[in-house]
Amino acid sequence: MRRWILVALVLAAPAWADDLPSWNDGAAKQAILEFVQATTQQGGAKYVPPEERVAAFDQDGTLWVEHPMYTQVLYCLARVPAVVKAKPELAQKEPFKTVLSGDREKIARLTLKDLEAILVATLTGMSTDQFAAEARKWLEEAKDPRWKRPYTELAYQPMLELLQYLRANGYKTYIVTGGGQDFVRVYAERVYGIPPEQVVGTAGVTKYEYDKAGKPLLFKEPKLLLNNDKGGKPEGIHFMIGRRPHLAFGNSDGDREMLEYSAAGDGPRLALLVHHDDAEREYAYGANTKVGTFSDALMSEARKDGWTVVSMKNDWKRIFAFDK
Amino acid sequence: MRRWILVALVLAAPAWADDLPSWNDGAAKQAILEFVQATTQQGGAKYVPPEERVAAFDQDGTLWVEHPMYTQVLYCLARVPAVVKAKPELAQKEPFKTVLSGDREKIARLTLKDLEAILVATLTGMSTDQFAAEARKWLEEAKDPRWKRPYTELAYQPMLELLQYLRANGYKTYIVTGGGQDFVRVYAERVYGIPPEQVVGTAGVTKYEYDKAGKPLLFKEPKLLLNNDKGGKPEGIHFMIGRRPHLAFGNSDGDREMLEYSAAGDGPRLALLVHHDDAEREYAYGANTKVGTFSDALMSEARKDGWTVVSMKNDWKRIFAFDK
Repeated sequence: MRRWILVALVLAAPAWADDLPSWNDGAAKQAILEFVQATTQQGGAKYVPPEERVAAFDQDGTLWVEHPMYTQVLYCLARVPAVVKAKPELAQKEPFKTVLSGDREKIARLTLKDLEAILVATLTGMSTDQFAAEARKWLEEAKDPRWKRPYTELAYQPMLELLQYLRANGYKTYIVTGGGQDFVRVYAERVYGIPPEQVVGTAGVTKYEYDKAGKPLLFKEPKLLLNNDKGGKPEGIHFMIGRRPHLAFGNSDGDREMLEYSAAGDGPRLALLVHHDDAEREYAYGANTKVGTFSDALMSEARKDGWTVVSMKNDWKRIFAFDK
Repeated sequence: MRRWILVALVLAAPAWADDLPSWNDGAAKQAILEFVQATTQQGGAKYVPPEERVAAFDQDGTLWVEHPMYTQVLYCLARVPAVVKAKPELAQKEPFKTVLSGDREKIARLTLKDLEAILVATLTGMSTDQFAAEARKWLEEAKDPRWKRPYTELAYQPMLELLQYLRANGYKTYIVTGGGQDFVRVYAERVYGIPPEQVVGTAGVTKYEYDKAGKPLLFKEPKLLLNNDKGGKPEGIHFMIGRRPHLAFGNSDGDREMLEYSAAGDGPRLALLVHHDDAEREYAYGANTKVGTFSDALMSEARKDGWTVVSMKNDWKRIFAFDK
């Protein structure tokens, strides 16, 4: 008899096993669970066939920490000495001179145009393979100053659980990021379980060339192919996926068009935003930051259109895998 | 006893079941079978893990008929009357005047620049959804004049078997075409079993807009985003897949860079070319055609680098599913 009870318990487990253990019970968790159950229930009114199950996630500030500076920008700043070593004439030129000075306050005051010059100098002018090798090396060594851990450990545990839960339910999980596609691909598979073909990002033109040994390579040109931010996100989604996501998850004004575009498709759709309101465990920032701006207008649109706003403070039991 | 023999036969079936029944025995079929067996044999020296199993196929002339004119160009020509109806001032302007005249000889003499103007006028200036609906409608109705069948029935049966065989062995099959990505996506899933996210093609810029009801859409701009031909094929592969294909299959000079790029990766690689040498069952054409040029230089490179040249005449038992 006891044995049968045990078997029954084991068989019934999925009904009460918690797929999202780092999420507190609440409206956000409920919305996610209901959406996944409804869209995967064969014969149900909201059923979505497996090939249509596409979920799109912004990265910076949605899947991992973006504050006070995007990790990719930190990478570019860290690459400046190597770039200047190869081209010594840059040492006396701005904005490279400021970066080399190491003066944090001055660096924080660099303009967007300055940053662009640094991005071009550090992200282009080499083969795609060479770039990936350099970025991989930095990611292995660099540490975030606040948590004293590799940046790749600063992924949000509740989001890792959500990605896994969606995949277990037949969803293809995509990253749709304003960040560099080639940069994110270096670690996306390891950190998020998302393969390179499911990383949609800002990308530059690459040129087909041969190295000295006659071996083909792709050379990263200093020219933008796709600016995968704001209206560029639906464009990137159309180009790389060719379907409207049924679930889209962002955290800032740069994700507005992606959420609108996804939510406007036929059938069941779920749009979500992470709200950074947890100064203690992570950061609290809103309308007036350099990165990840979550404007009042975005909050209004979310309320009006029934998008789910996820409060880090209230909806997440823990932030990182290393949290107790 | 007999029963056990039967069971043994059934169990052993995969060893001699023919996965490529429309292929004649020969070097090409042998090369494919050996490649797939070697790359999927766990523990073998040439084993390729499932996530790395990427196979890239050109479309026109590789998966279906491209001669004497690309199907997409036929679609664009067929759309001209509708475009002129919406913009009557085009009726007296070239090249639209020539297309409207219906004079086949004159149409065949249109220059590349003329064709470009027709492509821009018929493939852009509407939403992606509207374009897909129009293309779908034409594909349902239009028939090829030689075979008197829908164009979508002119896929090569041996290639359909190869796609299926590769997928059954864990390969992701991609189309990598110089043709329009949005056009090919309309039928790729139905004809080839290839979903939209695995169609890499020439693509235009799309712009995020709202329709009169405030619903988001992507508007097809008359501006090229990616010219997915020649050196653009590796670029498109890098952008959309982010991995070098282990198998690449083309049929013309436009596929040279894709084959080189794929073949130059580490580990086992297979590069193949369809050679159109069957005037009776399909077409025979080589260096001097408007479409699908297979130059002597390409043949030399194939010989030198050990690429497999597939003779339609000798390697394919039948060409189409409707062949006896």
